[in-house]
Amino acid sequence: MSTGFTQHDPTRTIRAPRGTALTAKSWQTEAPLRMLMNNLDPEVAERPEDLVVYGGTGRAARSWEAFDAIVRTLADLEEDETLLVQSGKPVGVFRTNKWAPRVLIANSNLVGDWASWPQFRKLEAEGLTMYGQMTAGSWIYIGTQGILQGTFETFAAVANKRFGGSLAGTLTLTGGCGGMGGAQPLAVTLNGGAVLIVDVSEERLRRRLGKRYLDDVETDLDAALAKVLAAKAEKRPLSVGYVGNAAAVFPEILRRHRAGELAVDVVTDQTSAHDPLSYLPVEYTVEQWAAEAEADPAGFTKLAQASMARHVEAMVGFQDAGAEVFDYGNSIRDEARKGGYGRAFDFPGFVPAYIRPLFCEGMGPFRWVALSGDPEDIRVTDQALKELFPDNTHLHRWIDAAATHVEFEGLPARICWLGYGERHRAGLLFNELVRTGRVKAPIVIGRDHLDSGSVASPYRETEAMADGSDAIADWPLLNALTAASSGATWVSIHHGGGVGIGRSIHAGQVSVADGTDLAAAKLEVLLTNDPGMGIIRHADAGYGRAAEVARERGVRIPMAEH
Amino acid sequence: MSTGFTQHDPTRTIRAPRGTALTAKSWQTEAPLRMLMNNLDPEVAERPEDLVVYGGTGRAARSWEAFDAIVRTLADLEEDETLLVQSGKPVGVFRTNKWAPRVLIANSNLVGDWASWPQFRKLEAEGLTMYGQMTAGSWIYIGTQGILQGTFETFAAVANKRFGGSLAGTLTLTGGCGGMGGAQPLAVTLNGGAVLIVDVSEERLRRRLGKRYLDDVETDLDAALAKVLAAKAEKRPLSVGYVGNAAAVFPEILRRHRAGELAVDVVTDQTSAHDPLSYLPVEYTVEQWAAEAEADPAGFTKLAQASMARHVEAMVGFQDAGAEVFDYGNSIRDEARKGGYGRAFDFPGFVPAYIRPLFCEGMGPFRWVALSGDPEDIRVTDQALKELFPDNTHLHRWIDAAATHVEFEGLPARICWLGYGERHRAGLLFNELVRTGRVKAPIVIGRDHLDSGSVASPYRETEAMADGSDAIADWPLLNALTAASSGATWVSIHHGGGVGIGRSIHAGQVSVADGTDLAAAKLEVLLTNDPGMGIIRHADAGYGRAAEVARERGVRIPMAEH
Ligand SMILES: NC(=O)c1ccc[n+]([C@@H]2O[C@H](COP(=O)([O-])OP(=O)(O)OC[C@H]3O[C@@H](n4cnc5c(N)ncnc54)[C@H](O)[C@@H]3O)[C@@H](O)[C@H]2O)c1
Ligand SMILES: NC(=O)c1ccc[n+]([C@@H]2O[C@H](COP(=O)([O-])OP(=O)(O)OC[C@H]3O[C@@H](n4cnc5c(N)ncnc54)[C@H](O)[C@@H]3O)[C@@H](O)[C@H]2O)c1
Repeated sequence: MSTGFTQHDPTRTIRAPRGTALTAKSWQTEAPLRMLMNNLDPEVAERPEDLVVYGGTGRAARSWEAFDAIVRTLADLEEDETLLVQSGKPVGVFRTNKWAPRVLIANSNLVGDWASWPQFRKLEAEGLTMYGQMTAGSWIYIGTQGILQGTFETFAAVANKRFGGSLAGTLTLTGGCGGMGGAQPLAVTLNGGAVLIVDVSEERLRRRLGKRYLDDVETDLDAALAKVLAAKAEKRPLSVGYVGNAAAVFPEILRRHRAGELAVDVVTDQTSAHDPLSYLPVEYTVEQWAAEAEADPAGFTKLAQASMARHVEAMVGFQDAGAEVFDYGNSIRDEARKGGYGRAFDFPGFVPAYIRPLFCEGMGPFRWVALSGDPEDIRVTDQALKELFPDNTHLHRWIDAAATHVEFEGLPARICWLGYGERHRAGLLFNELVRTGRVKAPIVIGRDHLDSGSVASPYRETEAMADGSDAIADWPLLNALTAASSGATWVSIHHGGGVGIGRSIHAGQVSVADGTDLAAAKLEVLLTNDPGMGIIRHADAGYGRAAEVARERGVRIPMAEH
Repeated sequence: MSTGFTQHDPTRTIRAPRGTALTAKSWQTEAPLRMLMNNLDPEVAERPEDLVVYGGTGRAARSWEAFDAIVRTLADLEEDETLLVQSGKPVGVFRTNKWAPRVLIANSNLVGDWASWPQFRKLEAEGLTMYGQMTAGSWIYIGTQGILQGTFETFAAVANKRFGGSLAGTLTLTGGCGGMGGAQPLAVTLNGGAVLIVDVSEERLRRRLGKRYLDDVETDLDAALAKVLAAKAEKRPLSVGYVGNAAAVFPEILRRHRAGELAVDVVTDQTSAHDPLSYLPVEYTVEQWAAEAEADPAGFTKLAQASMARHVEAMVGFQDAGAEVFDYGNSIRDEARKGGYGRAFDFPGFVPAYIRPLFCEGMGPFRWVALSGDPEDIRVTDQALKELFPDNTHLHRWIDAAATHVEFEGLPARICWLGYGERHRAGLLFNELVRTGRVKAPIVIGRDHLDSGSVASPYRETEAMADGSDAIADWPLLNALTAASSGATWVSIHHGGGVGIGRSIHAGQVSVADGTDLAAAKLEVLLTNDPGMGIIRHADAGYGRAAEVARERGVRIPMAEH
């Protein structure tokens, strides 16, 4: 038995095969093979030489030996065989049947009492497990397109909730223009709005200029406000970056808002508040930052938390004054609470506020990849999808924006949010495009593990569920079993993901539109049932909209049938 | 939506339908329906009025409303539909396909950081979850036959390891003749051996007299020893109960063993050592027990642990003197350690010592149930199984013993241990018996969650794995996904089970031999792959025998194929 365990190999450069020539025995096995390789494409992966795709140490395979064995096995796998992958290592091949998945994956799972970072790190160092993140170890990561799309979707949900479906004529105030947060200005303008984004770092702001990620940068507050207020008045999309400290700027703008000098409609923040050493307190300049944080981490933390208290106090002030305010996943509420501010949790997190209503309709991050490698294939799917949903202006806006702003990384891919009753129609459409040769090769269809019925994560996706069922983990397990029973090509169950060991269980599924009748039959069932899990999970938790969707669209819930 | 939540209803008496008339649309749905009901049969369940089947609070359904909804839904379910059950409550029905399971079950699962008894109890009280134990919430409990069989199998494994396959001509010394432990004398004599069982309670010993569970009871040690030594010399099976305290009797017998007056071959213990108040210290009589334990629990615990230290010290003494010694799952080693004895862990637990070698061959507790309700059907399967494996004398011995000693509880059932390469042959045989009408109705085939590749449980089934992978929980999840992909009729993933919340994850699968060709195709695949999981799990952990079995019997392990 091969006992080698090489995790670092700078000599390896992986890129998925393109075109229509098969290296495996069918497209159902070629697809996972190319997607595994695509996850390690230097355009896609953060540290491909270490098999790390994204998110800290989220890997595609446990070792290079395991990677090679997976590739070897997939290349040879029959259409009624199934490969088992245990935390990135191929551990068995069984004969199953044509409807069964070709690959079954379980990553990073630990028994509860051992589900801690120290235990995990120890087992990982011993070569017994790996961190699978969400789409790293399940071979369906598609690069940074997901961040822009997720932020776009959040602001679209804000627009739907409060402003009749568009942010045109509204002003958004936010902070933090870094790796994640830098998607905010474009996400707002794509939704038609004006936005002022505050960052202490002029360099960070300037990096986002161009391609409309950010339209303008200002160092004078009056000038910056004049520009966004004019855009707001003319219902024109515009993003302006202002160089300043949010803990000082937010209270100043609140003062003007209260005085009736201007009106802010939406307030949020994506400074890196989750780590107090990465949040600049008002006492220091950007130049002093690194040295001060290093010299006295405890003292720096105290100052940062005090600044965050002022920052969040202003956000609560905006909410009191009628604005739409939400936490955008950076833990700033808890840091402000530690900084001594008592009302920090007065505004909600973004999932309960905006994403959960979407989950109640089975909406979630649907994504697909052109196995041909030809960007033209994605253009064909974009166009066909717009024709399939001619009245969905929101979808059209995103597809057009993505076509303009997104540069493909690795195999060409697209992401958009679709709900129950829509996803299987998209799947069948793509299968038809393959069957009729309008795209050059089969299309892979997957999704993030962050989806409506696929995750238990009490600090994020299932925070503050209506019935208190945040920590119940039966749902993602049922989701994975259902996907395996519904014709998915590969299925995965992961522990940890974005929030870490001990904090979440989630499931993934991927399918392949290869143009055959069998694929059509599978896609119809799978892409109905998978978002259906979101409907039943939220209906069970007491969300009226989910129960309504179940009744309207015919999702069967036994306890409601009497 | 029905919001009722009734857990206690003494007016309900459930008993599965017998005979060949269907209440559901096919045997594939009739089977889970009857087995759910059978789990609540007053002959089977401990507290049927509370839906509790066994093991503390292991339930078959979350509430009576949930039970009724499951029954209603199963009665109506089509052969390409799948019912989802979340901790005993039916939450959805999806269209899948004929190869997919008809029921998918997830019980008691919690996200790691919330996987504690207090959190579980809170969620249970709120009606959001239930305790599924192993076979309670997965509808394949068959009463106490399993205890006798498990104990029989353990002593058979001892015989195989040390005594050439039989205990004839050996003497076993053990303690504790209670609910579980009372199966020990019969299990030893069924394996041909002589056994002395020590219990402080004469009443407990006398209760086991008859039906050969225990052959004799003695209050004089010399007389008791004379009887078992004579049997040993004549290689005759015999069990004798001796009324005494193991903490005093074990050292006395060890003294005689060391002096060459007698020779003990096997030593174990099943006094209820896991709870020190249930273990009688040498200082007290049975009559004083309850009062003293209540008057001063802390003081009583100290005395009990001190007695256990003497008890375990004698066991280690027997091991030093060459006997086969093992812990039989009652935690006496840890209590003796607390009682101040330093070498308590010198002898092993029974899983690493005897059961794991069986797991390495895919052996585990295979069980089946006659849906007709006719005991004659089990007799037919017993006979046919003996003919299928004509040379397996061990199996014959057990089947014959079970036919004599086991009284059926609920639907007639049988259990025996079969390994990789055997189980699917038994499944196909049963399907043939159904097809040809030699049994009156279909046969349900399942197993315990304690099996070779179905559980992660660091204090029991995966204690002290060779590679340290005790807590890795990917395996049971892959096991469940594989079962769902291999034609099982129902599949379950549970948390907790016999060892409690936070301590295990395990999977179950059940199938139905209904005499059809489709059932035959499924049984062949499922009953090959399911024990195959045990082979690959143990081969991966470095057990040579499992790797050997994989090579000999053709189980594919990708990392070994190069
Ligand atoms: N919504 C989600 O689902 C989600 C997902 C992942 C991460 N996050 C969180 O979002 C936050 C931002 O992530 P990122 O990747 O953009 O981080 P980043 O470190 O790349 O960017 C943070 C930015 O904040 C700026 N900043 C720091 N202190 C400031 C202050 N006082 N005033 C104004 N600007 C200040 C920095 O200059 C930097 O540009 C993190 O806390 C992260 O954990 C949210
Ligand atoms: N092997 C396994 O997988 C497994 C499974 C479940 C339970 N167990 C453990 O096995 C043990 C026995 O279970 P049970 O259901 O038979 O318990 P029980 O309480 O029904 O019986 C225990 C017996 O021990 C006797 N006893 C107590 N102190 C004694 C002493 N000092 N000397 C002699 N006899 C003494 C009692 O009189 C009683 O008859 C428990 O600790 C249980 O946790 C093992």
